[in-house]
Amino acid sequence: MRFDRLLTHARLATMVPGEVAYGALLDAAIGIRDRRIAWIGPMSEVPETALETESLDGRWVTPALVDCHTHLVFAGDRSDEFERRLAGESYAGISRSGGGIRKTVEATRKAGAAELAGGALSRLDALSAEGVGTIEIKSGYGLTFESELAMLRAARSLGLVSGLRVSTTLLAAHSIPVEYEGRSGAYIDEVCIPLIREAAREGLADAVDAYCESIAFSPEEIRRLFIAAKAAGLPVKLHADQLSDTGGAKLVAEFDGLSADHLEFTNADGIAAMAKAGTVAVILPGAFYGIGETQKPPVAALRAAGVPMAVATDANPGTSPMVSLLTAANMACNLFGLTVEEALAGVTREGARALGLAKDIGTLETGKRADLAIWDVERPAEIIQWIGLRPLHGRILGGEWL
Amino acid sequence: MRFDRLLTHARLATMVPGEVAYGALLDAAIGIRDRRIAWIGPMSEVPETALETESLDGRWVTPALVDCHTHLVFAGDRSDEFERRLAGESYAGISRSGGGIRKTVEATRKAGAAELAGGALSRLDALSAEGVGTIEIKSGYGLTFESELAMLRAARSLGLVSGLRVSTTLLAAHSIPVEYEGRSGAYIDEVCIPLIREAAREGLADAVDAYCESIAFSPEEIRRLFIAAKAAGLPVKLHADQLSDTGGAKLVAEFDGLSADHLEFTNADGIAAMAKAGTVAVILPGAFYGIGETQKPPVAALRAAGVPMAVATDANPGTSPMVSLLTAANMACNLFGLTVEEALAGVTREGARALGLAKDIGTLETGKRADLAIWDVERPAEIIQWIGLRPLHGRILGGEWL
Ligand SMILES: [Zn+2]
Ligand SMILES: [Zn+2]
Repeated sequence: MRFDRLLTHARLATMVPGEVAYGALLDAAIGIRDRRIAWIGPMSEVPETALETESLDGRWVTPALVDCHTHLVFAGDRSDEFERRLAGESYAGISRSGGGIRKTVEATRKAGAAELAGGALSRLDALSAEGVGTIEIKSGYGLTFESELAMLRAARSLGLVSGLRVSTTLLAAHSIPVEYEGRSGAYIDEVCIPLIREAAREGLADAVDAYCESIAFSPEEIRRLFIAAKAAGLPVKLHADQLSDTGGAKLVAEFDGLSADHLEFTNADGIAAMAKAGTVAVILPGAFYGIGETQKPPVAALRAAGVPMAVATDANPGTSPMVSLLTAANMACNLFGLTVEEALAGVTREGARALGLAKDIGTLETGKRADLAIWDVERPAEIIQWIGLRPLHGRILGGEWL
Repeated sequence: MRFDRLLTHARLATMVPGEVAYGALLDAAIGIRDRRIAWIGPMSEVPETALETESLDGRWVTPALVDCHTHLVFAGDRSDEFERRLAGESYAGISRSGGGIRKTVEATRKAGAAELAGGALSRLDALSAEGVGTIEIKSGYGLTFESELAMLRAARSLGLVSGLRVSTTLLAAHSIPVEYEGRSGAYIDEVCIPLIREAAREGLADAVDAYCESIAFSPEEIRRLFIAAKAAGLPVKLHADQLSDTGGAKLVAEFDGLSADHLEFTNADGIAAMAKAGTVAVILPGAFYGIGETQKPPVAALRAAGVPMAVATDANPGTSPMVSLLTAANMACNLFGLTVEEALAGVTREGARALGLAKDIGTLETGKRADLAIWDVERPAEIIQWIGLRPLHGRILGGEWL
């Protein structure tokens, strides 16, 4: 049996954990059949011929990148708040005058799914140009039954038009909408839980997420939400312990959560629970940087406990206006002390794991989908070292050049 | 007389200082003749016809960006040091084992001008894709008579092949080369000063720069260098007070320097001298971020003293591996508290001033070169708000689309 495509003369950062840094394999080849990696090995052992054979001229190949936490779909512009904050206004003052997430919600509710998808395209293009092959996109700016579904439809459609794999997350419990002010529990029961059932029924959501914080939803409310998600067959994840220690990491681990995200204030209990449950820690340096936070996530403790760490952009119009996953990885190194290999694993292998896709993507291994990023660099560390460089040579997604 | 080109239906951020933020002019047009801006005004008053008329469909236009401090030309790769530092090694340990600037010098000395220019192209492309129209490039990794000239030739050639304007700076006094260890004064007299004369004679350098620091050159040595530069008719600038207060800002102001760059440790005396001399403060957040510095430049005091502030990438393979001027501007806001308008002025008007080009570029004004960046944004602040977005629609340099 022949390969559909054989890529020769490559240096592979397979990102398979083991003795060798980056799981590197030099002077190697990859055989692709039926959109998957059918064979990987040294040039000297290429076993079969192929319909198409291409030399990569010694270039480095990594798994296509995975951005596992974004709010890429939204309407409206909040650059005025960026401006006002830097001119000295407080977050609270901006919020009181109708700014903050409420402004995005207002604009998003007015937009249809098509407009929402169109508005996200330039942001998706920026991530794609860096080598991203899979991206998670959350709802969470509609906060009504119909508007949350419209966001999920927009996200799904971006996968169809871009050729990238899009993983969708229902985040109806992102913020308490004005019409439910003081009645967050009722919002959970009347809007969020019915939405879980509908999104599951229509196949619009791959996971359920929420924001656990004193300014958003309580652990008890989120527990109710997670029970409904599990009943609908959807895995859960959580914006946890970003601004204070609410026990969010422990809570989501209790539900075998895919990931706990942010984690600046997570305590030892939460870390132990995550380690036990196999819940991924999603590190989001863009938000840390964007809001001028000083409390760093407990990277050393997560590492010591063996909790897998992913890195993502948290792309959103308020706290993390960032559509560069490579810059997020760079910041994870420079601001939080991840090693370069951890950061590269964070935007490949562990990003895939945080989406429940570890069996399918995230490393270069036989049987996985042939999602590859090919780089004009001399060493894998160069991919992350430079801010703004985009050293991507090309990309193969599902076995085809994109 | 007709315009060569008339751009209509534009929103202009002229960056001319005054009452209106960003010097904004809405529903405006720009007439271009002989590569220069011949007319600017409201749509209702367009006075003449043109050979070519194009509508910008309401897009925002700024001056093309100016990156006024880069070390873009070098050979070799130092991603291993990035890796080792994040794995816990100290700068000193890396330097002792042959790393640091010496590694770049070794590789650069081996490369010819053509190889140096070729190696810088991908970095120049990245800056260009963000809207940069003018870039300063320093020598300083050759540290021999011939190799410094080769770097300047490489920089000049990049201007010819890219269509961007390149301003070259002789930075032979960047670091003490191994062969002059312990004899920095002799290096200044035997290499740097003869280089100034030769670079001036050949027209290879637009300015002379040096690194004033305990680990580099003393104020006395730099004074000798600056005297030679002035005698050769070249303006001066200085890497000043980055790691300690050496009085560098005051020193370069004394020579009517174009700019003093870094300035983390500059004292009140230095600021007063800069204000008096009209020396521009070049803010380099990439290096601050890259080396994990905590001492911030005295932005509030510079602002209070009326010192113009430029923002640049400091693109270099060691301390500031960054080829995104928009990210530098974003960091100038988020890390140092520049307002968005100050940051945008820092990468246009004040960047031009730091290169002695304020009369020619940096604002949209009649008589200046028609170097324009055209943006797909709703407000000028969006240009800087997002990391990684590159919202550039197109660029006109010297009156022509690039
Ligand atoms: Zn988020
Ligand atoms: Zn520099």
